[in-house]
Amino acid sequence: MASSLESLLSSYGRPALVNSVLPALLDAISEIGTLLRESQNVTLAGTNNVFGDGQLNVDVSTENAMRKALAKCPSVLTASSEEDPIERPASDSQTKDAATTSEQYTVAFDPLDGSSIIAPNWTVGTIIGIWDGASALHQNPTEKQIASVLGVHGPRTTAVVALRIPGTKPILFELGINNGSQDYEIVRSDVKLAAPPFKTRYFAPANLRAAGEYEPYMRLITYFIEEKYTLRYIGGLVPDLVHALVKGHGVYVSPVTDKHKAKLRRLYELLPIALIMECAGGKAIDSATGEDILSRPLGDCNETGGLICGTAEDVDIVKKMLLS
Amino acid sequence: MASSLESLLSSYGRPALVNSVLPALLDAISEIGTLLRESQNVTLAGTNNVFGDGQLNVDVSTENAMRKALAKCPSVLTASSEEDPIERPASDSQTKDAATTSEQYTVAFDPLDGSSIIAPNWTVGTIIGIWDGASALHQNPTEKQIASVLGVHGPRTTAVVALRIPGTKPILFELGINNGSQDYEIVRSDVKLAAPPFKTRYFAPANLRAAGEYEPYMRLITYFIEEKYTLRYIGGLVPDLVHALVKGHGVYVSPVTDKHKAKLRRLYELLPIALIMECAGGKAIDSATGEDILSRPLGDCNETGGLICGTAEDVDIVKKMLLS
Repeated sequence: MASSLESLLSSYGRPALVNSVLPALLDAISEIGTLLRESQNVTLAGTNNVFGDGQLNVDVSTENAMRKALAKCPSVLTASSEEDPIERPASDSQTKDAATTSEQYTVAFDPLDGSSIIAPNWTVGTIIGIWDGASALHQNPTEKQIASVLGVHGPRTTAVVALRIPGTKPILFELGINNGSQDYEIVRSDVKLAAPPFKTRYFAPANLRAAGEYEPYMRLITYFIEEKYTLRYIGGLVPDLVHALVKGHGVYVSPVTDKHKAKLRRLYELLPIALIMECAGGKAIDSATGEDILSRPLGDCNETGGLICGTAEDVDIVKKMLLS
Repeated sequence: MASSLESLLSSYGRPALVNSVLPALLDAISEIGTLLRESQNVTLAGTNNVFGDGQLNVDVSTENAMRKALAKCPSVLTASSEEDPIERPASDSQTKDAATTSEQYTVAFDPLDGSSIIAPNWTVGTIIGIWDGASALHQNPTEKQIASVLGVHGPRTTAVVALRIPGTKPILFELGINNGSQDYEIVRSDVKLAAPPFKTRYFAPANLRAAGEYEPYMRLITYFIEEKYTLRYIGGLVPDLVHALVKGHGVYVSPVTDKHKAKLRRLYELLPIALIMECAGGKAIDSATGEDILSRPLGDCNETGGLICGTAEDVDIVKKMLLS
């Protein structure tokens, strides 16, 4: 299983990434899947009779699974997470190990995205961005964020992995992740959004309440309905975007208005997602500015933004209707 | 684990139902969860490069898990499913066994509801209705459909179980289902939709494309947006309805129009769901007629209908806007 991953990625000339970092992250996603499966009492969070720390336990245990995996990788110098958004050494011993590897990475992750839908047992996700060098801050995201991973925790555990290393051909593939260590299979080796004409068109309108105050968003929703797009909206970034990648079409819209501020984290959500979408042949732009998500360096781990992403043609339509 | 289920249900005077039929069905739901977890290649169904029988395999294996479980229950005389919608003896030996039990049941089930969202690894479900007697046909559903179960296959395996036996107090509870046989825990022993005022109101508009041609549906959507309801719509009956049960509020609308015919199966979908919703203190009506789903006997296993269900106040609002 692991060997097929190695052979898929052998030409990238990044042995530590391919043989150490990605396997460790995929094992952490597998472990997070197991943790979720065994956390029946997480159901209590989000209901009226919350016991208080069910949900917190899952947040903590999934964060720990990621931290433990990263600490095992000598080439990962720096890590930060949505739960603890400060870049720190990924392990206590990293300083001496760093000297022994020519690859040096920074990993930014959100271990459990979609906390509002954990209680009803809906699919949730893990988001990971991998950067060349000792920090994600003040770097050119297009060049330096060289990989990202979306872990999907649903009836199965799956993952979508993007690699875009300067000078090589970008690749986006889907894995099925089983229970054991490094037990995964390549389900699709080349994930691409479809080209028109589309059989079915999908839309996922986040924060739909904003359409009540923001006329362009209401017009956009009406447009989707009249043009017979199919609605699919979980309200979890990972499952909503992976739906588009699996179906071959989709547009996700999270608008920013005067009343509805940008709230998606650039480092832990927007930048990894944008790499995935671009590797799928799609686009990802900030709904606050219209700029490509990847066009602007990150100044701070807590920066936020809005999101329009998915099939390129539809991102352009949405941009025109919301931002011009 | 199983003993807590027995103690919760001991007062119902239905030993075969409580000690044999429900445990067998919950074990089948657990097995279906395992089958889904191990079916990585189901991902291929619903994509452009379908291998043909990945999805079919899961349909067949989950159907078999249910049939095998039912064949073990001497009190289950008759079974039918969405995959094979004809009432038949539940096991080869049922005739002689039937004489030995005073409880006699008919089970109707949909082993895997939500096939369109299996490929993207979204939460799907199993729907089961349990009827008193040797057939579900031409019976009064309110009196004769005495139990229903929704199995939820997401990051965890969970189930919502309703019992409404004439002469006893209805009960609706949620279980966490683990891997082993009869290994489940009661997560909430009394599931109820909340009373107003609601903290957050949710809506799930099925077949939203119909709003493009059917003006009342478009007005309803606009109403939800202006009233600041939160959109959550997976497009799978089980996860969409369980969301409402866990959050304490929700309204699901699947309209029937001239162009969009009633397509939900009454026996395998609408009737079991209606019992769950009524036991939660909510309502379930047919969007084609406005009648309570449970008010009309079933004439045929293939009958279909539309659906408006969830919080009673909201079902009334939707009924008024769509049907008057």
